[in-house]
Amino acid sequence: MNPSRLPEHVEGYGPVRAFDGVRPPPDVVSRAAVRTTPCASGRDKLLPDIDAVFAACNIRDGATLSFHHHLRNGDQLLNQVLAVAARRGLRDLTIAASSIFPVHAPLVEHMRTGVVRRLTTAYMSGPVAEAVSRGVLATPAVMTTHGGRARAIEAGEVHIDAAFIAAPAADRHGNASGAEGRAACGPLGYAMVDARHAERVIVVTDELRVAPPTPLDIHQDDVDFVVRIDSIGDPAGILSGTTRPTTEPVGLRIAEAAADVISASGLLREGFSFQTGAGGVSIAAAMFVRERMLRDGVVGSFCAGGVTAAQVAMLDEGLFSNLYDVQCFDPKAVDSYRRDPRHLAMSASMYANPNSRGPLVERLDAMLLGAAEVDLDFNVNVTTGSDGLILGGSGGHADTAAGAKLAIVTTRLTAGGRPKIVERTRCLTTPGATIDAVVTEVGVAVHPSRQELRDRLLRAGMDVVTIEGLLARARALVPEGIEGPPEDSARVVAVVEYRDGRVTDVVRSTPSRRSMVRVGLSQ
Amino acid sequence: MNPSRLPEHVEGYGPVRAFDGVRPPPDVVSRAAVRTTPCASGRDKLLPDIDAVFAACNIRDGATLSFHHHLRNGDQLLNQVLAVAARRGLRDLTIAASSIFPVHAPLVEHMRTGVVRRLTTAYMSGPVAEAVSRGVLATPAVMTTHGGRARAIEAGEVHIDAAFIAAPAADRHGNASGAEGRAACGPLGYAMVDARHAERVIVVTDELRVAPPTPLDIHQDDVDFVVRIDSIGDPAGILSGTTRPTTEPVGLRIAEAAADVISASGLLREGFSFQTGAGGVSIAAAMFVRERMLRDGVVGSFCAGGVTAAQVAMLDEGLFSNLYDVQCFDPKAVDSYRRDPRHLAMSASMYANPNSRGPLVERLDAMLLGAAEVDLDFNVNVTTGSDGLILGGSGGHADTAAGAKLAIVTTRLTAGGRPKIVERTRCLTTPGATIDAVVTEVGVAVHPSRQELRDRLLRAGMDVVTIEGLLARARALVPEGIEGPPEDSARVVAVVEYRDGRVTDVVRSTPSRRSMVRVGLSQ
Repeated sequence: MNPSRLPEHVEGYGPVRAFDGVRPPPDVVSRAAVRTTPCASGRDKLLPDIDAVFAACNIRDGATLSFHHHLRNGDQLLNQVLAVAARRGLRDLTIAASSIFPVHAPLVEHMRTGVVRRLTTAYMSGPVAEAVSRGVLATPAVMTTHGGRARAIEAGEVHIDAAFIAAPAADRHGNASGAEGRAACGPLGYAMVDARHAERVIVVTDELRVAPPTPLDIHQDDVDFVVRIDSIGDPAGILSGTTRPTTEPVGLRIAEAAADVISASGLLREGFSFQTGAGGVSIAAAMFVRERMLRDGVVGSFCAGGVTAAQVAMLDEGLFSNLYDVQCFDPKAVDSYRRDPRHLAMSASMYANPNSRGPLVERLDAMLLGAAEVDLDFNVNVTTGSDGLILGGSGGHADTAAGAKLAIVTTRLTAGGRPKIVERTRCLTTPGATIDAVVTEVGVAVHPSRQELRDRLLRAGMDVVTIEGLLARARALVPEGIEGPPEDSARVVAVVEYRDGRVTDVVRSTPSRRSMVRVGLSQ
Repeated sequence: MNPSRLPEHVEGYGPVRAFDGVRPPPDVVSRAAVRTTPCASGRDKLLPDIDAVFAACNIRDGATLSFHHHLRNGDQLLNQVLAVAARRGLRDLTIAASSIFPVHAPLVEHMRTGVVRRLTTAYMSGPVAEAVSRGVLATPAVMTTHGGRARAIEAGEVHIDAAFIAAPAADRHGNASGAEGRAACGPLGYAMVDARHAERVIVVTDELRVAPPTPLDIHQDDVDFVVRIDSIGDPAGILSGTTRPTTEPVGLRIAEAAADVISASGLLREGFSFQTGAGGVSIAAAMFVRERMLRDGVVGSFCAGGVTAAQVAMLDEGLFSNLYDVQCFDPKAVDSYRRDPRHLAMSASMYANPNSRGPLVERLDAMLLGAAEVDLDFNVNVTTGSDGLILGGSGGHADTAAGAKLAIVTTRLTAGGRPKIVERTRCLTTPGATIDAVVTEVGVAVHPSRQELRDRLLRAGMDVVTIEGLLARARALVPEGIEGPPEDSARVVAVVEYRDGRVTDVVRSTPSRRSMVRVGLSQ
């Protein structure tokens, strides 16, 4: 939003194409050519271990390895693969992971020793995020959106040498599903894109079956090798965000206000479509929306996203006819995917790729979003905390905000003694032009371009305030205000890309250790 | 098999890479880049009619339009689209259809008038096949295999400007399924490849729904436009081959002998996998195999292919754990696909593309194949009749023969007063090196390279004969023998490609009208 703040070139990243406003996609794009290796007749795809994969795929220094995060904070595959890479003496790898969680802490050491030189991901939290923030990685991390990652892979901007797919169940030919198995995690939506576009595709499973698990998320004709290991991860780690509605009064007030905004917007009518994250406020808001749908006899079309038990319940009640699911957030969602054909898998490209022939995010009526900070231009930061350290990233935040007719940010005025409404976000993740309303415990601010929405909320008797008013209220609560941004001279440790690849911001290194503020965000 | 017979260059086709023996796939292949058009936010994909598609997609002279044949002889989409093309005055189109049936007779006129200049397909029967045989098309038709078609499209050798997908049910965003709707036809396996690789993808449906039909065969992110028309075709036309077991004594004897070959081969054990076509002998043979499996307590792994009620019954009985289905041959198969998650859709590439990372055909134990002619080298012709006219084409014939451990041709010695065992096939569709046994009413001939199979059949007490012996028996029945091939000077009207794109044969024009011999083949 302030392109002048961006450097024109970032060492280790290249020239910066600055974000300068939301634009429609190009008229024509190209899905890149992919080199693949036919599987000669009779060749057995099953390899004894991950080490054998490195030999079979001829993975060398500088290769790009991709991973997906359906097991979230329970994933163990990335760590196991990189341990093998380190043992084999590999250097300068690029890790293209859809998200990074605290469980991936061992990656820090691989960054430090030079096994890993580059990292591109849509979200990171925990030790890796802190290490990146402090400059441990040799090059700036590239922080994409979920849709932007799919776009970049399809366009060939990110060339994956080997995609590692953690499959809760698979057969020895590579047919795999996230619906079955000990570590069942739901549709492997992010991995679907990697499987179609990586030069080598390796399915790693801890439940090797004779018959293919169903529904098939990954098909044998996209898979080079299959490996059985003891454990791909801990399915309990899928539940790494809040998946219950908040019971806390301020959170409930915000949730109800968000539902009021949706009601007042006029969108809560037949065919309504809806997405929320997995946070407690979002789920509470979904429950309020549910009540209104039941009360008014509204039958919606679909819920999308990361799917939780809340959406499954609404599907089961007939409030929606379908779920479109790129990843599950809890076991009830996994179970629904396994048993209910109306619960549809979608790839990350179908979900959010802005250059696809129709991403689902563009069919969303309402989207509930979290925020670490919101500024006077309605810009949202979900990438860094008030201490300057990386605490997340867009995930699908910027994608759904751009796509939804009504993108609502729910946030408290302050958290952890810091204001969340600020003059200017420390980091620009999601452009304010794609945000329609900011819902707080003291009122709703509507983006100035949405006068008609503002009028609707006023007619509905809601507390409509200005964003400046919210800033003033936040400052009154934590009068010290926000700290200044880091020096422009500090090294760039991460480049934040909008879904189309333009750069919205950079993150500069934070050398000293300060307390980290975390917010519960879904990615 | 006789490359010296092939011209080095065919006018309107180009240089001929002669088939000179079965070879493994290349070490590395490339899936071609694809130009696609992002769907800008809010754009409605729904167009009023097919004419609007031509304008929206800017379809011009010389464009390549693709079609799939899941509605088989009931399909009406190809005819409707070409009628529009002709009305718009288009010229020199290439038609890339997975198969052509008698219902596509209007195509003959489009070939005659120059609306259509090129045709590539894996199978053709009826008036179009006859017209091509007589030289009506300006250029030689290219006759591929089902797997070869998928390979050529993925490799970019066949560039599709616009893929027309006849969808029995779809939503306005392009999510489509063959499982539901008035003209439900089963998985849209051939269209899946086109949808991924065409520059423009148009879903045409006669059942436009608010909610997406399931299972999803085609996903919205691959679809540019959606059109609703009155009828995409007559679902009764799906049943265009025999789908009941033969009750005729000679056919039954052949069917039982084929089952005996499978039993004696040693492959009929746990994990057995199996494919047959839809002919009466094949289905009868499947029923004999079923009896043996029940008797011996054998539980197989999967049936593949074109799926009929016979395979569905064996899935329902627990004789197989899965069906892999690229197209359905009858309503019971369609119903099974709709209701049973073990009945899996597969794309043509997953089915048979020799350059994929593992086509299903290579996992087949036994395959039952038909034939118009078999020669002393075990070469099979399913492309032309004894009158020289085109009567079919490989479909999956050459693909499954190459992939299966045991490829069995079932055939009578003669049909329609013509021998079916011949010295040399008029046209080489499927190389003899990929055929293991020829089963007739007077005995089984085993390919000389399969001595171990021959020994097993002898030990099982079967009538093992030589192919020369079969030829002699056939000649004794129809002593006039076969006619000589057409003059080498006659114009080439079709080029027959092996699954890897090398040319096995050419078909030369047959100017005079002679009676056509048809055999029931599945494609």
